[in-house]
Amino acid sequence: MEHSPSPSDSREKTTSLLDSIHGPDDLKKLSAQQLPLLAEEIRQRLIHITSVNGGHIGPNLGVVELTIAMHRVFQTPKDRFVFDVAHQGYVHKILTGRNDAKLDKIRQTGGYNGFLYRAESEHDSYGAGHAGTALSAALGMATARDLKGTDEHIVSLIGDASLTCGITMEALNNIASCTKRLVVILNDNEWSISKNVGAISKYLTELITNPLYNRMHEDLESFLKMVPGGNSLLKFGERAKTGAKSMMVPSSLFEKYGLRYLGPIDGHDIDLLMKNLEFAKQSEHPVLLHVLTTKGNGYDVALQHPEKFHGPASFDPITGESKPSPKGTPPKYQDVFGNAMVQFAKQNPKLLGITAAMAPGTGLSALAKKLPSQFFDVGIAEEHAVLFAAGLATQGFHPVCAIYSTFLQRSIDPIIHDICLQNLPVTFCMDRAGLSPNDGPTHHGVFGIALLRAIPNSIIMQPKDEDELVDMMHTSFETPGPTFIRYPRGSAEGVQIKRRPKKVQIGKSEVIEDGHDIILWALGNMVSKAIEIAKQLRTEENLSVGVVNARFVKPLDKNQLLAQAQKTSLFVTMEDHVVAAGFGSAVIEALQEAGLSTPVERIGWPDKFIEHGSSEQALRQAHGLSTPAIKEKIIARYRHNLQNPIEALL
Amino acid sequence: MEHSPSPSDSREKTTSLLDSIHGPDDLKKLSAQQLPLLAEEIRQRLIHITSVNGGHIGPNLGVVELTIAMHRVFQTPKDRFVFDVAHQGYVHKILTGRNDAKLDKIRQTGGYNGFLYRAESEHDSYGAGHAGTALSAALGMATARDLKGTDEHIVSLIGDASLTCGITMEALNNIASCTKRLVVILNDNEWSISKNVGAISKYLTELITNPLYNRMHEDLESFLKMVPGGNSLLKFGERAKTGAKSMMVPSSLFEKYGLRYLGPIDGHDIDLLMKNLEFAKQSEHPVLLHVLTTKGNGYDVALQHPEKFHGPASFDPITGESKPSPKGTPPKYQDVFGNAMVQFAKQNPKLLGITAAMAPGTGLSALAKKLPSQFFDVGIAEEHAVLFAAGLATQGFHPVCAIYSTFLQRSIDPIIHDICLQNLPVTFCMDRAGLSPNDGPTHHGVFGIALLRAIPNSIIMQPKDEDELVDMMHTSFETPGPTFIRYPRGSAEGVQIKRRPKKVQIGKSEVIEDGHDIILWALGNMVSKAIEIAKQLRTEENLSVGVVNARFVKPLDKNQLLAQAQKTSLFVTMEDHVVAAGFGSAVIEALQEAGLSTPVERIGWPDKFIEHGSSEQALRQAHGLSTPAIKEKIIARYRHNLQNPIEALL
Repeated sequence: MEHSPSPSDSREKTTSLLDSIHGPDDLKKLSAQQLPLLAEEIRQRLIHITSVNGGHIGPNLGVVELTIAMHRVFQTPKDRFVFDVAHQGYVHKILTGRNDAKLDKIRQTGGYNGFLYRAESEHDSYGAGHAGTALSAALGMATARDLKGTDEHIVSLIGDASLTCGITMEALNNIASCTKRLVVILNDNEWSISKNVGAISKYLTELITNPLYNRMHEDLESFLKMVPGGNSLLKFGERAKTGAKSMMVPSSLFEKYGLRYLGPIDGHDIDLLMKNLEFAKQSEHPVLLHVLTTKGNGYDVALQHPEKFHGPASFDPITGESKPSPKGTPPKYQDVFGNAMVQFAKQNPKLLGITAAMAPGTGLSALAKKLPSQFFDVGIAEEHAVLFAAGLATQGFHPVCAIYSTFLQRSIDPIIHDICLQNLPVTFCMDRAGLSPNDGPTHHGVFGIALLRAIPNSIIMQPKDEDELVDMMHTSFETPGPTFIRYPRGSAEGVQIKRRPKKVQIGKSEVIEDGHDIILWALGNMVSKAIEIAKQLRTEENLSVGVVNARFVKPLDKNQLLAQAQKTSLFVTMEDHVVAAGFGSAVIEALQEAGLSTPVERIGWPDKFIEHGSSEQALRQAHGLSTPAIKEKIIARYRHNLQNPIEALL
Repeated sequence: MEHSPSPSDSREKTTSLLDSIHGPDDLKKLSAQQLPLLAEEIRQRLIHITSVNGGHIGPNLGVVELTIAMHRVFQTPKDRFVFDVAHQGYVHKILTGRNDAKLDKIRQTGGYNGFLYRAESEHDSYGAGHAGTALSAALGMATARDLKGTDEHIVSLIGDASLTCGITMEALNNIASCTKRLVVILNDNEWSISKNVGAISKYLTELITNPLYNRMHEDLESFLKMVPGGNSLLKFGERAKTGAKSMMVPSSLFEKYGLRYLGPIDGHDIDLLMKNLEFAKQSEHPVLLHVLTTKGNGYDVALQHPEKFHGPASFDPITGESKPSPKGTPPKYQDVFGNAMVQFAKQNPKLLGITAAMAPGTGLSALAKKLPSQFFDVGIAEEHAVLFAAGLATQGFHPVCAIYSTFLQRSIDPIIHDICLQNLPVTFCMDRAGLSPNDGPTHHGVFGIALLRAIPNSIIMQPKDEDELVDMMHTSFETPGPTFIRYPRGSAEGVQIKRRPKKVQIGKSEVIEDGHDIILWALGNMVSKAIEIAKQLRTEENLSVGVVNARFVKPLDKNQLLAQAQKTSLFVTMEDHVVAAGFGSAVIEALQEAGLSTPVERIGWPDKFIEHGSSEQALRQAHGLSTPAIKEKIIARYRHNLQNPIEALL
């Protein structure tokens, strides 16, 4: 810790309170006057750890006081906190005994995960990494409590962006019929990752900006009694009591869902927060407490750049500047995609970009800036995004859905039922296919091929480098049906991008190097690794090794594969995806269908959830998938075949 | 048509108006006075065709007048109608030139599909079979129109049950920011398939039952001006105009979403419907027209039994009685599941049944009736259903989600991110795995294995008969992690169900018959077919043929498989699922991982969407998957291996 940059010289001095906190009980020992100081110490700690490791600094700075108040009023682990998305759980970690060396390495190998996990602490009653799940899970817990007849409190912390997500609305619809006791805290900072969108967001702003509305909310009835004639209104209302109540008291959206609405209140006032939480705690009616917080609160650079400081990589804690990439670092796939989208969309007004609250992450913010009329951010609403694209596609447009691979899991049904069944021309740019190392298992994009390749009409491709990404975008934009392009997070290969993209023939692989002892069929970002391994096998093992850039998972280049099957004694498939039902699985299906039994060694992620880690390399090493380890696997399989030709063939 | 039973002797006479309708233009030629008579003729036609073919009679009887009014006011195909679920599209088919011989065979081989398909008519601008997609798709179309600058109308017809589905709410959140012109018709019959659930349903009832509320809605401002003191209220409100408006005019839920609310109006009054639709058509603001209809309207037996007459099989048009099943028909899997759930839940209060508006279809209504406190219907909210289960499971309960395989496609992300990652004890009973013949491609459950088997911690099984279904339920309820049980729609095998269920060993197959030339590995309902084929191969081809009841897709019984691989020259896998990434694919993966190259012939559905048809048998025949066709495939593959042993092995 001592070697890390510190945002303040007086760090030792300012952590005196924080050092005394080893769990929620310690927090309760502090005086009310000490809490703002504790909040300040937590802020410094947050800035410190995220400046080193990267992480969700903005959201966590926003909930420092709120989390303190929650732990003062409630008693975890008996009471259950369910944090939506759970990227705002660092303060909770700090207050529940995790302000330790593993926090110094948060999001790195050996450090805590950046989200919440049940396995990490008894204070984490529920894990998450995707938005919109908290209210449903909390309702399940509240229902369980009611069935058991116990008395713990269930507290769900959701962001305003969660209200753009349909699952939250499904849960809202079920609360009143399920339980009488549930505390929902709406942490309203007007942001998801980007600025929030849609009607609900506007509605919340109205609630906030109109103090009259809120005062009325509590006081309308007594007010009406004072106003001349107000009583007639009240009497008039008695004819139909419920309806009249609706008329007299401007009930909020949440009251239509049967929740008692409290707020909005200042989310940085610990005392006020505690009073309201105490009230909510006693309520025999589900309560929604509307809390206003400021993303990045207490840290100037984060306040000035809320989008950047949602979840930056490591940065200078004083200036907020990102560490510059080493010279010669290739561009990110996301930037290549974003820039290419702008170029294609300029030439083709029918090309539309759609994102589900991920414009900066996917690089689609370039399109938003340059051609806003061809850009749509629908909020955290991946299913709607795909269906909206389907509607656009029926009317002659070509929508491009830029959605992280892990979040596209939300859209499998519309992809089957709306896009593929109707065979509509929609391109899916599956960002972060493969690992998202610092984020961990909630964010790895390693199931996409299995989920998609069984669906009729799907075309699935993955480029070997950024130039091929642009070629594949070009190809897919000219394809009259659904196409899926996978590509990883972060740096591309550093190749030159052609001035004019070329169309890739659908279902055609690229033979990069000929060979006959072993042929490596590599997908996407595995091609460069395959080239490296092939080179080593040639020089070190004196083998003839071919390399194929598969390009397409579907349709697979069966012609090439079957022709090569006649001459090679081992195929190796390489993919940044689980091996079960993945690309390699498609290869052995094709061989079996042709009645061929060429052995295939499939390289990919194993059948378990991969943890978070400092880098893809670190995780590859941990799971026997580093480049040397892959090479050893290949050699072992090849030798096994040689030594056991009969077993291998029978 | 003449041979079919007719609900009335005077059919020829009463169809005189209907016979003149060959498209929407003909409808517009009728006088207003003729429309109720036309409605009556359409009702008779609906009762006739559904009594013969089965189908969604209740929902269609409810929208006769509404559909007539829509086609009188709007002009398809230029204007676009988007029907949610699209099971209420029979009247639309009748009015758009499809009142013909194919309608007589609706839902049967050679007849029209029971839902809407773009390929079927230019008047079907969007296809569907799952609920909740219409508003998003319509918004895409409206946005496309605005971008193009054309002037067609986009009309979306949604049911009140669609409001329990999160996707509809995601779309609602985006309407106001996307377009100024969209007509949403809310067809409110208070039912989804079962009686509707949740807060929104209650809210709609309040709107309906409280005429004051509605009158106020239009007239409150003028009313306030008349009431003594009312003006002060108005003046008071000027301080904060928007807020005050919210206070003075009790805006409905939909107005919070930026839609203009009209209604509720009588959905069986054509004249009133047309006036309101004309108004909506002119509106330069998105409009929601709240229409009250009665499911089954005009047909007494359907009115008396709305749940049964949502979508019955064929019935007697006079009495409404279902045709009795032939004597000796085995029980349905759904009834076996429902009864077993009651028995298990009685013994284990921690066992909870959850459905997403599918209690009658899945058989879970038995639990609802017998043990209502252990039953939850969350509405058409498959994602919430799974997350709610996750929350319950963290607190020591064992939830059982009974969801059709096709609708479980909605829950893939929560299954990955919440259930499997947290390794929670939740059982998924995947009803209608395999074909749903009369419904067609939107409802076939043929992708489930591919979607699930790549996910770590998943256990996937399928019983060969109803007795094994109960054994597998018993097994899964004792399993401390996620389990998935697939079983088909309709009749089981007719075997005796043991009084006391036995646990099935996880990952253990059952060898039904030994053999060495060919071994059939069959999954679930394919086991009985495999036994039949094996018998024929033995007697007709004099082969030694083994049969294995695979039981588990995951974990696959590799011990058995690899042991058999040493002695057989051909494996055949049989599954009621697409072959891509399915059960057979898992088998060849296991063989390849062991370095074995035993040939495998995979039998399953091909890589295309399977149409609807009269029966599973008819569809199997059409796609080369009848029992004789499977047998021929096996013989051909076996002979090919014999004749080309080297090719087969190399």
